[in-house]
Amino acid sequence: MTTRKSVGTYLLERLRALGVRRIYGVPGDYNLEFLELIERTDGISFIGNCNELNAAYAADGDARLSGISAVLTTYGVGDLSALSAIAGAYAEGVPVIMISGVPPLHAITQRALLHHTLADGNYENVMNCYSQFTVAQTRLLPQDAATEIDRVLGAAWREKRPVYLQLPSDTCCVSVQVPATQDIACWYGSDPVQLQAAVADIMERLTHATRPVLLLDALVRRFDLRERVAELSRLLDIPFATLPTGKGALCETDPNYQGIYSGKASAPALYERVRTADCVIGFGVRFVDATSGYFSYAFDPAAFVNIQAFDTRCGGDVFMGVAAADLLDAIIAQVSERRATQQPPVSASPRPVVAPQPAVQDTPAWGQPAFWARIQTFLRQGDVVLADNGTSLVALTHMRLPARCHFVSQPIWAAIGYTLPALLGSLNACPDRRHLLFIGDGSFQMTAQELSSILRARHKPVIFVLNNRGYTIERMILGETAAYNDIANWDYAALPGVMGASDAAVCLRVNSMDELEAALKQAEDPQQLVFIELGFAPMDGPTGISAFGGVVRHYDYGAFDGR
Amino acid sequence: MTTRKSVGTYLLERLRALGVRRIYGVPGDYNLEFLELIERTDGISFIGNCNELNAAYAADGDARLSGISAVLTTYGVGDLSALSAIAGAYAEGVPVIMISGVPPLHAITQRALLHHTLADGNYENVMNCYSQFTVAQTRLLPQDAATEIDRVLGAAWREKRPVYLQLPSDTCCVSVQVPATQDIACWYGSDPVQLQAAVADIMERLTHATRPVLLLDALVRRFDLRERVAELSRLLDIPFATLPTGKGALCETDPNYQGIYSGKASAPALYERVRTADCVIGFGVRFVDATSGYFSYAFDPAAFVNIQAFDTRCGGDVFMGVAAADLLDAIIAQVSERRATQQPPVSASPRPVVAPQPAVQDTPAWGQPAFWARIQTFLRQGDVVLADNGTSLVALTHMRLPARCHFVSQPIWAAIGYTLPALLGSLNACPDRRHLLFIGDGSFQMTAQELSSILRARHKPVIFVLNNRGYTIERMILGETAAYNDIANWDYAALPGVMGASDAAVCLRVNSMDELEAALKQAEDPQQLVFIELGFAPMDGPTGISAFGGVVRHYDYGAFDGR
Repeated sequence: MTTRKSVGTYLLERLRALGVRRIYGVPGDYNLEFLELIERTDGISFIGNCNELNAAYAADGDARLSGISAVLTTYGVGDLSALSAIAGAYAEGVPVIMISGVPPLHAITQRALLHHTLADGNYENVMNCYSQFTVAQTRLLPQDAATEIDRVLGAAWREKRPVYLQLPSDTCCVSVQVPATQDIACWYGSDPVQLQAAVADIMERLTHATRPVLLLDALVRRFDLRERVAELSRLLDIPFATLPTGKGALCETDPNYQGIYSGKASAPALYERVRTADCVIGFGVRFVDATSGYFSYAFDPAAFVNIQAFDTRCGGDVFMGVAAADLLDAIIAQVSERRATQQPPVSASPRPVVAPQPAVQDTPAWGQPAFWARIQTFLRQGDVVLADNGTSLVALTHMRLPARCHFVSQPIWAAIGYTLPALLGSLNACPDRRHLLFIGDGSFQMTAQELSSILRARHKPVIFVLNNRGYTIERMILGETAAYNDIANWDYAALPGVMGASDAAVCLRVNSMDELEAALKQAEDPQQLVFIELGFAPMDGPTGISAFGGVVRHYDYGAFDGR
Repeated sequence: MTTRKSVGTYLLERLRALGVRRIYGVPGDYNLEFLELIERTDGISFIGNCNELNAAYAADGDARLSGISAVLTTYGVGDLSALSAIAGAYAEGVPVIMISGVPPLHAITQRALLHHTLADGNYENVMNCYSQFTVAQTRLLPQDAATEIDRVLGAAWREKRPVYLQLPSDTCCVSVQVPATQDIACWYGSDPVQLQAAVADIMERLTHATRPVLLLDALVRRFDLRERVAELSRLLDIPFATLPTGKGALCETDPNYQGIYSGKASAPALYERVRTADCVIGFGVRFVDATSGYFSYAFDPAAFVNIQAFDTRCGGDVFMGVAAADLLDAIIAQVSERRATQQPPVSASPRPVVAPQPAVQDTPAWGQPAFWARIQTFLRQGDVVLADNGTSLVALTHMRLPARCHFVSQPIWAAIGYTLPALLGSLNACPDRRHLLFIGDGSFQMTAQELSSILRARHKPVIFVLNNRGYTIERMILGETAAYNDIANWDYAALPGVMGASDAAVCLRVNSMDELEAALKQAEDPQQLVFIELGFAPMDGPTGISAFGGVVRHYDYGAFDGR
């Protein structure tokens, strides 16, 4: 059974089937027909943004909470403006569907010299860029559009990474034959032999381990393994730690939670716990410079199991075609069965030896240490917490989150300014949760205009802008007083008034603990956007950050780091 | 004779030698040592921007007036954010030197998993993107850094297009042997045989032509051929027209100037003049959709000579390795010599038959037609006029500029928002000229934060923001009342107060001809930034624009354009 639909209609249907509810973007002459289709389609809506970089960041933020999202741009100018955000989604593992309205096929085929191109007839260069930063790409042609849509969208779903589709303007409304509906998000299951071998290897390790530990990375959330990993930890009473890149993977109120593991930048007891473990089970562990104490992790490689989305590495062995979910299900089943049948049990590990991380010490004097200590107690269950790169991310990474919080950051791609547009996306995905954004002034300026989209939608987040007059995190690496680390000093708290209706936001300036208390009262249960500008000294930072600059300086500049 | 210098120092010296005076950008952990070097170098300075896209636009605007400029970003996040602007510089032919501070070579060599990458050890993907949109690229290594710097910078200079250099953080201060200074900007001259043949062909055409015409495109300004082309027109009394992409190539007050040629979108008399010409000498002519009345140009291909930077096409013949400047010098010399020796002269063409384009009709009622008519008389000699894409570019393209104006636009790449950051660059290049920016609200929001850098430098441009509540040019194509073409309505004239000192700008709102007159008085000889927000109806536009939307709609969407 087949039927005919326009290419644009079929694309929208398949996006909806995958769970896409919002398409972010900017209209342009090559995507207007597709926009017309979106307007007429139930269950999916277009969210206009100020520019394409911000649109793709917003889609990323949405997908972090909703599971998947999409961006629509116009060719060339829009695609390339959004590229960095798409690369970020790739680095962090976020399925964002990037759709470009491209020039009509009749013009591409003739290599016509068009605006939004280099006017040299080259229609491959933009695709070549996107092929670097997406897991699948296509230009939709009438002859195989349906097949290609399913192939590319399926890849995004399975890999949890961005994909790229070019929709020629004159192809959007062409009808094509489409297959009977089938599951676009399918995964055909693990190889049974490889799966059995991997389970046996891991069970053997667990049976003999006396000091096992779990290391959680972004994989746990991306592939929705939270319940399974929590169950494994609970069943075997195995302590777990989370990498900064996976922060919030499981509730940090779990009694087995040991804190954030980042090599020697971890709490010393946790560093030792991992170093002396006789079985380290990782979940998509990637040790990246800035999130691993510059590769200062240490444990026995032979004791390391790293469970990836579709394969598992146990010491030197690799089991291919094994899905993490299948593997965990099988292990949990075996453990439960042994328990039930009184077979020699998989030994429960000793109770966690690492004490919960102490709360950051409260300091009465105004400054970042006191601010963050207060924020620790301000956070509450279910908050969506967004931390921009810089001092905010450093501080929040090491803070213990209440239960069911969702933590949004970009520690690997590390593009400053990401979180403000991402906040628009997270708000759209979960409008009923409290959203807290922490962002420095330098980061804020990068993408500042998107505040207007948040106001326009009358969302009610709390936005903390840490105004420390420039790029503090860079100052800590090099150029403490250099002019190049300075930025213009805006009247940040006046900006919501310029970009939105005057009643759309409460705007506050905070320069003391008392002012902070007053501001937090307004932010407790916000009835409108609460915008809080915090004044800090240029070299103020969270406790413990001062060592960071020297480590980065030495890694980046080597022998010349002391100049 | 050789000497040793650090890679960063040598790069700065060669940039200076080419004429680079300013490097725009954003600091980041991989470029801080290079920033330290810039701080210690006379004659070249760093201009910090709010984000990298804006930085590259600013460098483009600077290079349009100063001849060449540079951008500095940090790897990955910065590079990809700037990419669209670099592609724009390629499309429009602007030499922008893009420098990326990249991770240390020791890490690249090991394929270390670093932030600002995909954390997969791939260090080629960003380079692969830049190789699509630059004429030369390199990653600087100690073993051949000097040679590579000269090769890549020389390419930018010769081609007048962007190039890309990766400077590893640990390589910046490594000393390398550098050659004795040689001319980096050299061009070894035309092939004499090809040159002679091309000159003979063109002289033959000119000798017999009775209705010759010159068509000027961006080449004239990019390769500094203005004097030569003006001389040729004057000597032979040949009328000339300019393509929209070359607007302002020669003074529009020249008696031989015939107006803007864009196929059937030209004044009918000019269209006919070109169509019936028996010799059309083009200078880098490229007919692009939006600037050629959608390819509606018409003239005898056999009568067409197209002079390019390094080759010339005469009818079906191509003369390779012939520089435009050499060719023009030879032709002018031959014409002058024949005149002097009373040989059969190259016939002077009849006086231009095309009357100067009439001034736009003055209309008393407030609206875009009246506004633009008034602006025509407000423009004065030497102004730098920046026109963002949309109604501003449409209106200003067909306006006659006073003598010695410089026109800055991006008609081919056509990225909205380009001109606001470009204004920062043009102001830095020529701070003593009057700069007028005309930009729509949708464009302005794209890059709005860069207003802060203009204020911070205490520049004194006049900025006209045309607030018509959305993407008017898109509305004319499709979706006249569609929500996707709406944008948030900012209090634009309040923005300078948020981003700069309250005395840094005069901010005005204009909704009538009287208010316009009052505002223009303040803008006549501005002592500070003058920011003028103009209120227009969503479908208001310059005279003649209404036909435009239908043409685009038909080209882009074909048979379905009527839906």
